[in-house]
Amino acid sequence: MTAVRSGPPPLPVARLASEKAGTRDTGANAMQVYTPPLRDMRFVLHELHGSAELSTLKGLEEVTPDLIDAVLEEAGKFVTEVLAPLNQSGDLEGCTYENGVVRTPKGFKEAYKAFCEGGWNGIACDPQYGGQGLPASLNKLVEEMLCSGNLAFGICPGLTHGAYEALKNHASHELKDRFLPKMVDGVWSGSMCLTEPHCGTDLGLVRTKAEPQGDGSYKVTGNKIFISAGEHDMAENIIHLVLARLPDAPKGIKGISLFLVPKFLPREDGSVGPRNGVTCTGIEHKMGIHGSSTCQMSFDEATGWLVGEPHKGMRAMFSMMNSERLSVGTQGLGLGEAAYQAAVAYAKERLQGRSLSGAKHPDKPADPIIVHPDVRRTLMTMRAYNEGCRALAGWVARALDLMEHAEDAQERQRAEDFTALMTPIVKALFTDLGFEATSMGMQVYGGHGYIRDHGMEQYVRDARIAMIYEGTNGVQALDLVGRKLPAHMGRYLRSFFHPVLNYMDAKLDDENLGPLITPLSKAFGALQLATAHIAEKGLKDPEEAGAAATQYLRLFGMVALGYMWVRMAEVAFEKRVSNPDDAAFYEAKIATARFFMEKLLPDVAALWGSIKAGKASMMALDEAMF
Amino acid sequence: MTAVRSGPPPLPVARLASEKAGTRDTGANAMQVYTPPLRDMRFVLHELHGSAELSTLKGLEEVTPDLIDAVLEEAGKFVTEVLAPLNQSGDLEGCTYENGVVRTPKGFKEAYKAFCEGGWNGIACDPQYGGQGLPASLNKLVEEMLCSGNLAFGICPGLTHGAYEALKNHASHELKDRFLPKMVDGVWSGSMCLTEPHCGTDLGLVRTKAEPQGDGSYKVTGNKIFISAGEHDMAENIIHLVLARLPDAPKGIKGISLFLVPKFLPREDGSVGPRNGVTCTGIEHKMGIHGSSTCQMSFDEATGWLVGEPHKGMRAMFSMMNSERLSVGTQGLGLGEAAYQAAVAYAKERLQGRSLSGAKHPDKPADPIIVHPDVRRTLMTMRAYNEGCRALAGWVARALDLMEHAEDAQERQRAEDFTALMTPIVKALFTDLGFEATSMGMQVYGGHGYIRDHGMEQYVRDARIAMIYEGTNGVQALDLVGRKLPAHMGRYLRSFFHPVLNYMDAKLDDENLGPLITPLSKAFGALQLATAHIAEKGLKDPEEAGAAATQYLRLFGMVALGYMWVRMAEVAFEKRVSNPDDAAFYEAKIATARFFMEKLLPDVAALWGSIKAGKASMMALDEAMF
Repeated sequence: MTAVRSGPPPLPVARLASEKAGTRDTGANAMQVYTPPLRDMRFVLHELHGSAELSTLKGLEEVTPDLIDAVLEEAGKFVTEVLAPLNQSGDLEGCTYENGVVRTPKGFKEAYKAFCEGGWNGIACDPQYGGQGLPASLNKLVEEMLCSGNLAFGICPGLTHGAYEALKNHASHELKDRFLPKMVDGVWSGSMCLTEPHCGTDLGLVRTKAEPQGDGSYKVTGNKIFISAGEHDMAENIIHLVLARLPDAPKGIKGISLFLVPKFLPREDGSVGPRNGVTCTGIEHKMGIHGSSTCQMSFDEATGWLVGEPHKGMRAMFSMMNSERLSVGTQGLGLGEAAYQAAVAYAKERLQGRSLSGAKHPDKPADPIIVHPDVRRTLMTMRAYNEGCRALAGWVARALDLMEHAEDAQERQRAEDFTALMTPIVKALFTDLGFEATSMGMQVYGGHGYIRDHGMEQYVRDARIAMIYEGTNGVQALDLVGRKLPAHMGRYLRSFFHPVLNYMDAKLDDENLGPLITPLSKAFGALQLATAHIAEKGLKDPEEAGAAATQYLRLFGMVALGYMWVRMAEVAFEKRVSNPDDAAFYEAKIATARFFMEKLLPDVAALWGSIKAGKASMMALDEAMF
Repeated sequence: MTAVRSGPPPLPVARLASEKAGTRDTGANAMQVYTPPLRDMRFVLHELHGSAELSTLKGLEEVTPDLIDAVLEEAGKFVTEVLAPLNQSGDLEGCTYENGVVRTPKGFKEAYKAFCEGGWNGIACDPQYGGQGLPASLNKLVEEMLCSGNLAFGICPGLTHGAYEALKNHASHELKDRFLPKMVDGVWSGSMCLTEPHCGTDLGLVRTKAEPQGDGSYKVTGNKIFISAGEHDMAENIIHLVLARLPDAPKGIKGISLFLVPKFLPREDGSVGPRNGVTCTGIEHKMGIHGSSTCQMSFDEATGWLVGEPHKGMRAMFSMMNSERLSVGTQGLGLGEAAYQAAVAYAKERLQGRSLSGAKHPDKPADPIIVHPDVRRTLMTMRAYNEGCRALAGWVARALDLMEHAEDAQERQRAEDFTALMTPIVKALFTDLGFEATSMGMQVYGGHGYIRDHGMEQYVRDARIAMIYEGTNGVQALDLVGRKLPAHMGRYLRSFFHPVLNYMDAKLDDENLGPLITPLSKAFGALQLATAHIAEKGLKDPEEAGAAATQYLRLFGMVALGYMWVRMAEVAFEKRVSNPDDAAFYEAKIATARFFMEKLLPDVAALWGSIKAGKASMMALDEAMF
């Protein structure tokens, strides 16, 4: 049992770190406002996805709704008291590089220490390695808060968790026992070394080499770029997972192996030993996430160990990437939520113009801009996307928990199918919408959003990377149409289509839900047509599938959000009666559901219209004419 | 006659300035690539909008296609040789503020001198004040190049031109004679002082005061913020146009007057005299346009003169704002074009993966990413928007020329109607699409677009402001539905609807154009329905018009671009036969027209679907529930 799971809340540590970091005194305008949306998180977890069932799963017996609420609350406190105050100052100061050493912004080191000491680094990790074994359903919400409060900070533990997943699923027992406990408690962090100067998406081109040393170890040599948290001053050691080629490797993607390469070679007693042959040769100057170092890494005969089988590095890396892709989706949601909250606060406070239906506050020199329909449209759009994404993330997180904990093999398989299908959608849809939401938030602020002070422009800059890293959103779309749709004769797809079809059939005649089911059903029809289009045309000509991919992913995502909104409305219709004290909350859910169906879901008509036109006009132009 | 209009090209000056500025040596990675799209500009000006007719207009007799081409070419050289090399270094260095003094980045001062000496500052100004009297049709294209090459630089002359327009149309002869010649040659620049800390959109709240001094002058006192080029070191003097209230002013927007307040009071001989009571008290730290100062200005009994009539300041200011709004639209286009060119260059050079239809370059380790359908889709989208916007800008610019030079009063009126209608559309549509294009360009670059080196992230940051300043895009949409649609019983609207309807009727049976007319006609139908919806519902309830505004503007803009694309295709179908040497150019136009109609125009279905749902779900939520 650990502090978070049963002991007293880790507040003293958190408060102390906050004071030590002293960031409230840095002079940066602490104008970002963020309150963890605990009420909505509880709605998603308990009321929509029935968290009470979690404790029926093996290994999650102690995970009661009360425990969940306590953890959420503590996480929220940690974020608002320790991490959020460092967000703007961290952006302003950025990471610095000098002679191979990377320093994170003032306060980050202390905050990281508090983060680890509070047990937050391992909340979703296996108790066998010192983790708290809390469900993904809960962890995803904690992640969202981290991203809202301080994305740049959250990237490092996010990568540690990805590396943890890859090692846990593919490394030898010896490597796991040696490295995982330190990574779970956060004393050692992780990194993911894939990209090289000449290759990012196409990892078959990787040139980094690994020479076996005859003692089970390897010497790894090569250059990597864009390595987030590849070097920093927050952890005692950094465990790099590195893609490289063995001497006898086949060409291309089938000749890539995965290696564990620590910054410091650990001694038998677990303490850090001599420096390994890996150095950071520089960091990037980026549009955003300034508080997270993006490193150029040089491996010069660095000692490493093989993770998984030779030449099967991509399989092992995908464990890490799939986990990361869901987390990157959460980054989009987290920033969308932070931008929404800031925009709402500004829209209620900023007085400008009068309501078109007559002055709402005649006592003031002008009405708050939230009275203007276009501001409302913007806020409602952000809200509908954020809450929809949170609900969808909850559904996927539940599948992650079932994959891990369900006793029935079929149930585990269905959950795995669903997760595989939804991973590219969550990554691309959430990050596209997150970026759009931050830009909408800036628009509500007007000129005040473009200047640094309010912190809104930081959200826009920070959000933009999430559409790119862990596979660009275009790559996600190709993964969806090229791998996930055809897999097992469409079996993955059925893990989404069947529950949605069954639900629509069951609820079509429901007095309350009928008016929401009608547009959902229309949108679902477009999704079916688009799916058939890709299946038929794409079978003959893969470029047709590629041409449709991005818009198909968006269409799929909009239908998934639409389904979540009807499901949320269903709960809200019931609860506004059974829980009248909270009726306003449920009325807002119903109003937002209607907004989504009426004002946003019509997008699917455009997407399908564009998809069905096929690739011809897209591919017609001669390359030389661009 | 001036250098640009007839003399030798101003190249020597330009080259000198470039060398003086020395920016190629600053160490900034000069990775942005930009080539003025002269071929497409000539297409728009000569082939699409028939520039030969310009010389039939009074005052434009000398404006032959040859002259136009020479000016375009010289402008392109000036931009690529002098301004573009300062774009990345200017962003990196930014403007600095110290004790009321603002310094522009290294090289800007010399570049501005060369710009003025080359006659570029006054190319579209009245020869009566030393301008070159060149048509707007040409000037808009020169502006586009400036924005592509160095937006931050271009903002200052853009504001001078706006101030010139306001003074020319509203100031007394005395003020005009005293100030305009210096503003036309650029020795004195202009600024536009509207916003105050508590008011931007709602200028009725302006608090700055102006006290008459009995000698025809006024003492102006108050604080302004967000004043672009309000203080800088490039010009000898800065002429501020300031909104303020006279002592007897009625409350609100009807009590605002416009004043000319120079930084230095000019002497009788035209030289600058004593410093006036206006100081810059700070500059903003912004997301982008770092090379352009955004100033906090303090007016403390500063001497000024009334421009136009008392309390009619908004009318005068709108002369300036309308000119500026079209220019800001051009900023979106300029950055969209720069981003497109950079993305194309990268997509042709970056090798990653293999074409889905089989390796295109088996000799290389991978194919260039331009072979991938999703990259193509992205590039085609950028291209279709950019070229469509350039064509539409050309149509509006032609109307500006007719407003100014047509002899027939009815023709002038029609042109004025059309300009009034299209101004908010150009401003909002072009800047929305420009921002989207820069973000798409970044996506093509992947991680390499997010880091500073390639200059792509600068385009994204720079483009974002254009959606905000000179009236947010939401304000533009309200201008369209609230002012422009109902004006004179829909007369403005007819200036667009009639030519489009007539054209579609005439060309529907055209073998080549028919397939493009069909989707245009469908989209136009949605525009008619949306217009009727707003007219009917909005008449009863202005909030209904406000709720539809933003999506209506986008719908309108997409139809306008669609019309331009059919018109361009018409020219291309003819010219590929009559001018076979350039057939590839025309084939590309036709291919891009098809892409626009098939892949982008379907958006109107979604927009109309959303508009027709009305305001209900948007306004339902209680304010407290946000």
